[in-house]
Amino acid sequence: MAKQKKSPRPRAETPKGFRDYFGAEVAERNDMLAKIAATYHRFGFEALESSAVETVQALGKFLPDVDRPNEGVFAWQEDAEGDKPGDWLALRYDLTAPLARVYAQHRNDLPTPYRRYAMGPVWRNEKPGPGRFRQFYQCDADTVGSASPAADAEICAMLADTLEAVGIPRGDYIIRVNNRKVLNGILDGLRTEAAQERSPIQPGGLKANLDRSAQDIGDVPTDSVLRTIDKYDKVGAKGVIELLTTGRKDQSGAFIEGVGLTENDAKLVVAFMEAKGSDNTETLRNLRSLMGHADLEAHEEEGLYHVGLEGLQELGQISKLLESQGYGPDRIVIDPSVVRGLGYYTGPVFEAELTFEILDEKGRPRQFGSVAGGGRYDDLVKRFTGQEVPATGISIGVDRLLAALREKGRIGSTAVGPVVVTVMDRDRLSDYQAMVTELRNAGIRAEMYLGNPKNFGNQLKYADKRAAPLAVIQGANEAEAGIVQIKDLVLGAKIAESASHEEWKAQPAQIDVPRADLVSQVRKMLDAGQ
Amino acid sequence: MAKQKKSPRPRAETPKGFRDYFGAEVAERNDMLAKIAATYHRFGFEALESSAVETVQALGKFLPDVDRPNEGVFAWQEDAEGDKPGDWLALRYDLTAPLARVYAQHRNDLPTPYRRYAMGPVWRNEKPGPGRFRQFYQCDADTVGSASPAADAEICAMLADTLEAVGIPRGDYIIRVNNRKVLNGILDGLRTEAAQERSPIQPGGLKANLDRSAQDIGDVPTDSVLRTIDKYDKVGAKGVIELLTTGRKDQSGAFIEGVGLTENDAKLVVAFMEAKGSDNTETLRNLRSLMGHADLEAHEEEGLYHVGLEGLQELGQISKLLESQGYGPDRIVIDPSVVRGLGYYTGPVFEAELTFEILDEKGRPRQFGSVAGGGRYDDLVKRFTGQEVPATGISIGVDRLLAALREKGRIGSTAVGPVVVTVMDRDRLSDYQAMVTELRNAGIRAEMYLGNPKNFGNQLKYADKRAAPLAVIQGANEAEAGIVQIKDLVLGAKIAESASHEEWKAQPAQIDVPRADLVSQVRKMLDAGQ
Repeated sequence: MAKQKKSPRPRAETPKGFRDYFGAEVAERNDMLAKIAATYHRFGFEALESSAVETVQALGKFLPDVDRPNEGVFAWQEDAEGDKPGDWLALRYDLTAPLARVYAQHRNDLPTPYRRYAMGPVWRNEKPGPGRFRQFYQCDADTVGSASPAADAEICAMLADTLEAVGIPRGDYIIRVNNRKVLNGILDGLRTEAAQERSPIQPGGLKANLDRSAQDIGDVPTDSVLRTIDKYDKVGAKGVIELLTTGRKDQSGAFIEGVGLTENDAKLVVAFMEAKGSDNTETLRNLRSLMGHADLEAHEEEGLYHVGLEGLQELGQISKLLESQGYGPDRIVIDPSVVRGLGYYTGPVFEAELTFEILDEKGRPRQFGSVAGGGRYDDLVKRFTGQEVPATGISIGVDRLLAALREKGRIGSTAVGPVVVTVMDRDRLSDYQAMVTELRNAGIRAEMYLGNPKNFGNQLKYADKRAAPLAVIQGANEAEAGIVQIKDLVLGAKIAESASHEEWKAQPAQIDVPRADLVSQVRKMLDAGQ
Repeated sequence: MAKQKKSPRPRAETPKGFRDYFGAEVAERNDMLAKIAATYHRFGFEALESSAVETVQALGKFLPDVDRPNEGVFAWQEDAEGDKPGDWLALRYDLTAPLARVYAQHRNDLPTPYRRYAMGPVWRNEKPGPGRFRQFYQCDADTVGSASPAADAEICAMLADTLEAVGIPRGDYIIRVNNRKVLNGILDGLRTEAAQERSPIQPGGLKANLDRSAQDIGDVPTDSVLRTIDKYDKVGAKGVIELLTTGRKDQSGAFIEGVGLTENDAKLVVAFMEAKGSDNTETLRNLRSLMGHADLEAHEEEGLYHVGLEGLQELGQISKLLESQGYGPDRIVIDPSVVRGLGYYTGPVFEAELTFEILDEKGRPRQFGSVAGGGRYDDLVKRFTGQEVPATGISIGVDRLLAALREKGRIGSTAVGPVVVTVMDRDRLSDYQAMVTELRNAGIRAEMYLGNPKNFGNQLKYADKRAAPLAVIQGANEAEAGIVQIKDLVLGAKIAESASHEEWKAQPAQIDVPRADLVSQVRKMLDAGQ
């Protein structure tokens, strides 16, 4: 203890971009996560809690040869052991990279397929902004080791059940399903016009063509197309066509260069996004038609692989499986306009949107929007083991979903403080403490005032700050008479604001009850106040 | 995506000293923490989840001027902003240091006293060992801003309720309470013989004498005495007396030097540890007698402060408050032999021990031992604000308590896998998936086999690995007959091991039921299997 040394006082602050969570915020999130976990568990998913710290090598994405690999992550180097330099360690930036490491490390002990869920904080070394923190919660569920569309369908069904379990009623959400492969099939169609001869579609099935379709297909810059159609919501069909062809002036007057597709090709891409029909069958028919019958049939006849065809088949299976389980298009629907994250995924993609309206910061109504997203990604474990392992999963935006539940009034209104037993006479702490214990033993949240009891006003201020619904008071006179006073602080506040003297007399905010009736009377008043 | 570049495959390993938690391990811990949180909440404590990352400055304990302040913690430096070097950040190493920062930062918004609980991982940059990890859970409850012994008593009562809430029955635990000040009072007594004239007891109340008593008192090396009496369990009264006086040979024959007290003083210290009487009143009387009546009374008459006297009064108040709440000495008892952590604390200290026996690694019975500890520490917030803020709290050893619940058979035996619906015919996935959904909708944990269905044996192996209690099977014949087969995998395993043919016939491990009875029959078999 360096008592003698004078050093400047440390600042009592969280690091920039971090925050603390208090009371109801913590409890509400834990409640929600517990409900989600219960649903995932019922679907056969197992909890996984991996360590928060990973080697930078295992996390991937970061180059092992840069001097300090902490772009985007919080990283540090372990102390050297003799001549051997220490490993670089980092805080996980999501829950998927650790899943890959866990599955590769424990694959001989884990069942295959492995259904797992994970919930916990992740860390990003990014510039913080309003509402953007460098530590936040994620909540994921993934199935590793199954290529079956049944695994994708299951994830969607589970997501629907989960949203209902946490308190989003049916009708207030929609889960939309698309397939990355279908878009590739469309882009394949474009390609035939431009680059058919140079690089024909490969025989050899899934792998040969997936590798190719993950990169640019022929002359069509896939990434640019994806980025562009992601703007559909903002700029509309006309805007997307401009951006896909020759370019467009944005609102500020600046010119955005076009991707360089022909007008016809751009229209085909937009038609793909707008292919949603009145039901899944019609949607699938629209998509197939856009891909070009003749071409497809030629492929089938020649026994050649067509990625778009496979995508259509998968969507058809997902649709059929969901229907057989009773998840109709009012809950889960095929919608080719789902684009978010398409670039990352290799097959089916999902997005859950909340459809009820809220007011934006300018007071205009808008849909609440997306709370969860996911899809199939098949390169997960390969970097560790060299073997391709198919995987599909979903990630729920924990803070978004909590905000939605707050909007719906599902949480936030129930944060009631404890009953506060005040201290009128400091020599009778035992009596007050006995009251508190009786209340607690009856399951009622209660506490004795533990500050300096001298100033009674401070005790009531404290009770206010604690959002206490009731205060219990017993001075010397009451003790002698065998009674306690119970003060209704909620009603008291209301009366202080607005009530007339008559109202006050009809329902006083403070009553005397026999000491023996303390618990029953408190319960009665708490029940009435709810 | 650097697909072309060949780099060596990353190792799929957690960093040294870290581990992953799977399935039931995660769920069991979460269940236990939820029960603890519910109890804390009932006592009026509020959840706090502070960020995992703190500035090294705020965490304290580490010198701000060393080049790399990561001894004991995982620390890294933020990127510089212009000329300003980046802050050093670190992962929290416990939940108390962050509480101090949070209270100092938010004290104007928080109620005083502030009761808070916190549960979550902490990180230690230490050499890992068997069963010793560098990330582990802590679970704390503290009351900040109250100097009242009622706050200490409340923590003890809450700890008792908490242990019972998670499944430790009354009688299987004891919470022992001591007071650091009482030991100081005893050491004061020693001091009077040796150094009385040099440095008399200070007038000026609590602060003047506490500052002094936290360091060596007169000639008595307090820390050495504390470390020595902490060995009481190992070396017994005789050993402690030897160590406090002239020294002692340990089992290996090596000589441990003594602290240098007189034989009489050493006996007094041991008498203090053995002062526990048949009830709290007798214990307090014993302690008072050890402190020396005459001396105490002289202090009282002269209005001088005596730290031991204050300690006795506090223990008396705690005892009285607990009694008034019905927490008798069968649950919470004053026991002067509690020494653990005395050096760190400034007043009352608590320790919860589980008293049931387990077998140690050599098969000998021993008490399970400590699962929680805490006490009063009053310097918490001072480093930030300069003001002294009294605080008291408890920390539960999450892993220890989980291990205890496992020993008692309270957890671990209930980890039952899902009902697995097998895939006999891959064209009928929808039928199988519909069965799964029916089971799930009835609240039964269930899943369809999502791997390659070709080899049916693999499906049953998978069900085994999943600890599935039942497998559901429907081939073409069964489908045509409108039935399903339900295979009892637990019973099946038992029969395979030991049962006779007669037993097998009497209770077959596999039955056929009408498809419509699937859910009711599965529930019946699950209930019977419990």
